[in-house]
Amino acid sequence: MSPRTTPADGGVVLGVDLGGTVVKAALFGPDGTTLTVTHRPTGGRRGPEAVVASLLDVVSESQAAASARGTPVRAVGVASCGIVDERAGLAVFSAAFGWRDVPLRRLVAERAGVPVALGHDVRAGGIAEARLGAGRGHEVFLFVPIGTGVGAAVMIGGRPFGGAHWQAGELGHLVVRPGGEPCGCGQRGCVSTIVGGPAVLRHYRALTGAGGPADAAGVAALARKGDPDAVRVWSEVVEVLAESLAAAVTLFDPSAIVLGGGLAGAGELLFAPLREQLAARLAFQVMPEVRPAELAYEAGCLGAGLLARDLLNSAAGQQG
Amino acid sequence: MSPRTTPADGGVVLGVDLGGTVVKAALFGPDGTTLTVTHRPTGGRRGPEAVVASLLDVVSESQAAASARGTPVRAVGVASCGIVDERAGLAVFSAAFGWRDVPLRRLVAERAGVPVALGHDVRAGGIAEARLGAGRGHEVFLFVPIGTGVGAAVMIGGRPFGGAHWQAGELGHLVVRPGGEPCGCGQRGCVSTIVGGPAVLRHYRALTGAGGPADAAGVAALARKGDPDAVRVWSEVVEVLAESLAAAVTLFDPSAIVLGGGLAGAGELLFAPLREQLAARLAFQVMPEVRPAELAYEAGCLGAGLLARDLLNSAAGQQG
Repeated sequence: MSPRTTPADGGVVLGVDLGGTVVKAALFGPDGTTLTVTHRPTGGRRGPEAVVASLLDVVSESQAAASARGTPVRAVGVASCGIVDERAGLAVFSAAFGWRDVPLRRLVAERAGVPVALGHDVRAGGIAEARLGAGRGHEVFLFVPIGTGVGAAVMIGGRPFGGAHWQAGELGHLVVRPGGEPCGCGQRGCVSTIVGGPAVLRHYRALTGAGGPADAAGVAALARKGDPDAVRVWSEVVEVLAESLAAAVTLFDPSAIVLGGGLAGAGELLFAPLREQLAARLAFQVMPEVRPAELAYEAGCLGAGLLARDLLNSAAGQQG
Repeated sequence: MSPRTTPADGGVVLGVDLGGTVVKAALFGPDGTTLTVTHRPTGGRRGPEAVVASLLDVVSESQAAASARGTPVRAVGVASCGIVDERAGLAVFSAAFGWRDVPLRRLVAERAGVPVALGHDVRAGGIAEARLGAGRGHEVFLFVPIGTGVGAAVMIGGRPFGGAHWQAGELGHLVVRPGGEPCGCGQRGCVSTIVGGPAVLRHYRALTGAGGPADAAGVAALARKGDPDAVRVWSEVVEVLAESLAAAVTLFDPSAIVLGGGLAGAGELLFAPLREQLAARLAFQVMPEVRPAELAYEAGCLGAGLLARDLLNSAAGQQG
């Protein structure tokens, strides 16, 4: 059997990560190697049509690039932010894009002319970490990317748990400070109002005035050097994260928590006190491993690529 | 095929609910009808051996009763409180019984001489509600029995989610009042220190002195009549329950919450304000149905009986 002519080999697949600001696409070879990565602004501020146009253009360009290599794209996986109904292939809601019930799977399939899987960015990242990253060997684990806010994919037996309405795992919207800062979600005092890039920067500036570091990584760097205001802001990040993860452990009982996203880049500045504070909060619960994600910014594309690969494999299984 | 001679018919099965104070056993006919129910004190205070002896005696007696009817027990399901490893057949831990790693499935199988399934009381109740009760038609729902404390079974596709260490769903041990009353679990301010029979009675007596109602149902009855102290205690029950369920909805995204146990017997005194307060706490989350369990005190036995029935069906499937 030639690896190019049977569905079972997989061929080349395209994984697209449709994020709030950037749409990123990667071609993956039959052995999982990343062949090329392209990205461009999502154009979310120009409305839903502009986002769909960006997405479809990236897909077409990547297909053309793959065909030029003599290895046409066999399937496409799209992992989108917002609320995604994977079964129906619908982008149900995104505040960033201002869209509701966009039939994203159908739109991409019409353009691409190959099978398309639609997934959710955080859950797709969880799939990638489960199969290829820090979640390997864990039947039940949480993948928790911390970027603008805090997300979570609840991974059970290698598959993400979506809940009844594809909204499970909204760790960033647990209320930890009742009556606290308003959150974009409509609640007050959510985890994401304290743990997340913009919150960290805002809270540091509230203490020190304008100027200073340009992002949360800069605040983390100052905290590492002992800057008292940065230490104060960082301590609250760790405390709130430990508090919310303790609740998640009590309800999900995972054997590992895999932290990814920008803030996890702070390394032991985050992990060391977080492990300590989480352990201190647990009593009868089993303390999970708390470890960094292994796939970093590529987890979304990679997870989308895996969804595409699964489509091909299940088609091959049905034919075989 | 005769219903008595093939495994597929199911025959008579025994479901045993091993609770903190009472062990209850029910014989179920092939059509699921309850034939007889027997119960006795668990004898937990006399130590692990006494509990096992009570359990084995109830099993033997029920088997003898079934044989006397001419319909011998074909399989036994045992649903135990505490931490239960269903795969290994181990009763891992129970504070009430003072036991660790008791090979309960093997012990019962040796006595009974028929296939035995070991389950967990709350998860078994969830299975019963999923198949025969208030959870029917819900792919993802929470079964939340409120008795001495608050438990939860997270039901996904008709099956309970156990977590990595069979400890998922410990809703009663979410910390809602940091630094609050000590809980038997080792934490402080758990849901179960406020929501649960003993807590309700204790808090009412703390306001009013000794005397008054003998149990939480009595406090609920006074609250219904407008007794200010009872109303105050009851309001806190509803508030804390709404708070913890809001967290559970944010993480699990269920389409229904099925409340059982003694406190759910308060009916609309509980359900009306609980629905209102839960809805008020949710923003983007989808408000689940909040409804009473349908199987009441029999859910545990029934769930255990279903585990036994599944054993027979899977054996029949393998033979057929």
